[in-house]
Amino acid sequence: MLNKCPTSRARVGEITTSHGKFATPVFMPVGTRGSVRAVSPEELEASGVKIILSNTYHLYLRPGHKIIEKLGGLHRFMNWSGPILTDSGGFQVYSLSRLRTISEKGVIFQSHLDGSRHFIGPEEAITIQKSLGADIVMTFDECAPYPADYEYVANSVKLTSLWARRCIESKIHAHQSLFGIVQGGMYQDLREMSAKELVEIGFDGYALGGLSVGEDRATREKVIRETVGFLPEEKPVYLMGVGKPEDIVEGVGQGVDMFDCVMPTRNARNGTLFTSWGKMVIKNARYSADERPIDEECGCYTCSHFSRAYLRHLFTARELLSYRLNSIHNIYFYSHLMENIRCAILEGKFDDFCQEFFRNRSASANN
Amino acid sequence: MLNKCPTSRARVGEITTSHGKFATPVFMPVGTRGSVRAVSPEELEASGVKIILSNTYHLYLRPGHKIIEKLGGLHRFMNWSGPILTDSGGFQVYSLSRLRTISEKGVIFQSHLDGSRHFIGPEEAITIQKSLGADIVMTFDECAPYPADYEYVANSVKLTSLWARRCIESKIHAHQSLFGIVQGGMYQDLREMSAKELVEIGFDGYALGGLSVGEDRATREKVIRETVGFLPEEKPVYLMGVGKPEDIVEGVGQGVDMFDCVMPTRNARNGTLFTSWGKMVIKNARYSADERPIDEECGCYTCSHFSRAYLRHLFTARELLSYRLNSIHNIYFYSHLMENIRCAILEGKFDDFCQEFFRNRSASANN
Repeated sequence: MLNKCPTSRARVGEITTSHGKFATPVFMPVGTRGSVRAVSPEELEASGVKIILSNTYHLYLRPGHKIIEKLGGLHRFMNWSGPILTDSGGFQVYSLSRLRTISEKGVIFQSHLDGSRHFIGPEEAITIQKSLGADIVMTFDECAPYPADYEYVANSVKLTSLWARRCIESKIHAHQSLFGIVQGGMYQDLREMSAKELVEIGFDGYALGGLSVGEDRATREKVIRETVGFLPEEKPVYLMGVGKPEDIVEGVGQGVDMFDCVMPTRNARNGTLFTSWGKMVIKNARYSADERPIDEECGCYTCSHFSRAYLRHLFTARELLSYRLNSIHNIYFYSHLMENIRCAILEGKFDDFCQEFFRNRSASANN
Repeated sequence: MLNKCPTSRARVGEITTSHGKFATPVFMPVGTRGSVRAVSPEELEASGVKIILSNTYHLYLRPGHKIIEKLGGLHRFMNWSGPILTDSGGFQVYSLSRLRTISEKGVIFQSHLDGSRHFIGPEEAITIQKSLGADIVMTFDECAPYPADYEYVANSVKLTSLWARRCIESKIHAHQSLFGIVQGGMYQDLREMSAKELVEIGFDGYALGGLSVGEDRATREKVIRETVGFLPEEKPVYLMGVGKPEDIVEGVGQGVDMFDCVMPTRNARNGTLFTSWGKMVIKNARYSADERPIDEECGCYTCSHFSRAYLRHLFTARELLSYRLNSIHNIYFYSHLMENIRCAILEGKFDDFCQEFFRNRSASANN
């Protein structure tokens, strides 16, 4: 912990991995299938990205973790030399695959690609993540659907703790870290139980899973706020799958250190660009002859070299370069946001930062 | 002219434009809509590209040449500081648009994008290319269909000469060059007539149009060989829309200085990669765990950083990075081929080069 905000739980920290250190709060762009879509490793680095997330489920199915292991691990496979966090596959097994059968052993499921049958349990999830060579490995959890009744979620918490213990017993590589995932749906006592059980087992960090699954914002914030209170202050807290810039700023204030979301890259491919005053929909006709960059104050490659008019043209013509240039801008926006957040916390001005951040976004954008 | 092959018409030359010089024989990647698909300007430069081609028809329809002019011209719009050649729109008006009505004035056509009606004649083609700010401007021609009867083609040659004269009279900018386009289908006497008429008018260079339209290889070669003989030796010869590496090597031997083709970029997007021993289809299962680069002797960004296994994975997963990495390799292959051709000619070894080139490609590739 390098510094803490005096009036919130916001804090700056540093995490060390065998592929380098990075400061928190941090945002991790998502490279689902061993590639952050449309962007090269060099462009990630130039955009200020320090750590990326990749998905165990997808890489297990294609190209297969054994192939990646044979080729020297995921870092070498995709030519990314910085830290990588891999999820455990749990979330995708529930959200993407068909015909799931969950037992204490693990989950039998059908591939969303070709219908083939597979089994992943906690031991398998660790084996796969060891093959991939991730710096931060996640435990295999059961992410309950939303909404779900109390009994279902209680059982899912029990299973998640059981599996978390078996993940520990499966022994990651010495250079890897293992994060536990707190479940419990929107039930505060179950979140508490899950957090306490995981803390008792003991992990290198703790993630909040099962959020951003359809609940409203107030519910999510309440769950985060209360759950973080049960986690040890000296360990990193990772809020999985979140989110919008607003959610991140609020999450930091609640003590979250790590975030991931497909939003910057997915929105980029849909032509939605992030700016300090809100979203810009680049296909809008008002940009057709606009020679300004997306954001005159942005230092990204896209803003340094191309006009809104060109970006609009590329997007309307569905040119492949469009997806790349938009993604670079949005990823840079997120990296830069995290950097500003860290600076504000270090300077003891996180409250001011939040006020200005939300004021800018509510001001009407005449751009 | 810097040097000539003693036994063929192959020659090395240099063309100067207001955006820099380049050596010939040269290959121009195609940036149809103001972007060489999937590749950035910096990547083009790093791949050895010295000049690109862009399409008047497409840019006229979208975003519109007036917008590009307002934004400082095509170079600035797309952030490419090297030379640009624009075609005249003639070929696309015939091949892409609907309901064409050709008269001496020009062509009325419907946009392939939205069905809107437009008119382009020689004067309009020059006006558009002046707005775009191309370094090399092409005359507006009539590209006869193939096959076409003698009378049709004879008339098309007449129209092409008439229009070429009107293009000259439309006066390009002082910093631009104007190339005439020889038509005449597969009829040698019409090719001769077309070439002689254009030479009499006098252009900065001469292009061979109406080839690669479905004719067989022997026919095309005969037309090229005989037509080049009617063109002034001191002017560049440009073979439009050609082609395969084999076609380029042969074209150089017939005295061609400039080539363009969508093949390197289109094949890249289809997963077909060029190598010195022929084509590599990257989705082939034999590459699934192949840690070698596409070509161990290739110096491109893709070959320097990524394995066949990764490229295969990206392609089968339809990752956007796949199209970029494949395109970079193929563009580099073409640039490098042209560089090798120029070196061979300068060293007086073009015959040896051709023999080795074709021997390598006929050898069975066990890669």
